[in-house]
Amino acid sequence: MVRTRTHGISTKGQGDAHDVTPVVARAIAESGIQAGIVTVSVVGSTAGVTTIEFESGAIHDLNAVFEKLAPRGGDYQHHLRWGDDNGSSHVRAALLGPSVTIPFRDGELMLGQWQQIAVMEFDTRPRDRQIVMQIVGS
Amino acid sequence: MVRTRTHGISTKGQGDAHDVTPVVARAIAESGIQAGIVTVSVVGSTAGVTTIEFESGAIHDLNAVFEKLAPRGGDYQHHLRWGDDNGSSHVRAALLGPSVTIPFRDGELMLGQWQQIAVMEFDTRPRDRQIVMQIVGS
Amino acid sequence: MVRTRTHGISTKGQGDAHDVTPVVARAIAESGIQAGIVTVSVVGSTAGVTTIEFESGAIHDLNAVFEKLAPRGGDYQHHLRWGDDNGSSHVRAALLGPSVTIPFRDGELMLGQWQQIAVMEFDTRPRDRQIVMQIVGS
Repeated sequence: MVRTRTHGISTKGQGDAHDVTPVVARAIAESGIQAGIVTVSVVGSTAGVTTIEFESGAIHDLNAVFEKLAPRGGDYQHHLRWGDDNGSSHVRAALLGPSVTIPFRDGELMLGQWQQIAVMEFDTRPRDRQIVMQIVGS
Repeated sequence: MVRTRTHGISTKGQGDAHDVTPVVARAIAESGIQAGIVTVSVVGSTAGVTTIEFESGAIHDLNAVFEKLAPRGGDYQHHLRWGDDNGSSHVRAALLGPSVTIPFRDGELMLGQWQQIAVMEFDTRPRDRQIVMQIVGS
Repeated sequence: MVRTRTHGISTKGQGDAHDVTPVVARAIAESGIQAGIVTVSVVGSTAGVTTIEFESGAIHDLNAVFEKLAPRGGDYQHHLRWGDDNGSSHVRAALLGPSVTIPFRDGELMLGQWQQIAVMEFDTRPRDRQIVMQIVGS
């Protein structure tokens, strides 16, 4: 069985993070599927998904490492192509990846107590994002 | 339902990137599966898969960050083991990951307009690579 | 069909790596499922999963890059929140991701000869970890 659910969020630009764990948990509950996997993906090439202890300190720390790795003000060949200013966004998104896949059993996500599903906005401007939850199981 | 498709590519060595989106889209269309997920993986420990806006500038920028993170000419204990020169390749591949999982619906990949599936070669020499597309759905 | 298997490991703290490939291969064989995908995840927000050539040199090299990227002794806002000392662990885990999804066919993982599934402990102290293998296929 497959159930597709989508969820829209509005982000504030680079570094903004959203905890979508409750949305994903509800989608699984409503699907009636007891055991399987859920792929949580964000549509677009300047955002990513991971799991993290979702508190402001850890989110700040993760963004600080991304800033070190791919500084927002750095020189990017992507900028030459389109006149864009979001080369750092593309690099960060490609490194983190567009989706995570999480197992569930008895209708419950198999995550740790301090582990949440985080959508990370990397683009340099606010964006409306579509989150896809693809639930596969039985 | 499960359908397995494989696709071979020949790469030019470290930094070479291949857009496999059309191949994946065709595999889904030919499978007849309408909704589900596709796991796109590359076989081997010195390559990886992600999504990115597939244009030469963004690919260059991503490779530049990998070169900063794990320089090709750096010192690696892996080299001592086998006399290899591809320690940077193993580190880059482990960081990026060997696969991405993408949802699809109505037979269409749920990707953004500027978001492609990229196989990244990290090995220091040209390689023949096998791409696996595992399609699971209904 | 869906089969859930769990496997416990005890880790030695930050940088400890475990090759779970034989455990995953056995879980697939015992499931009787011939073709599909297995999602291998580690429960918690301070560990991760990837694939790598599992030899001590490559593991050392990967950890060295993580130390450069998110030094254990660095300043983290996460520390201010709880008095924890594992800000580096959270950042590393979020970057690597909590799971990998690997295709299999004819009951065999589609991995390279030198490609193993590695669970990476990033926490600053020894932990008991639960590995989840969610097998989906037919």
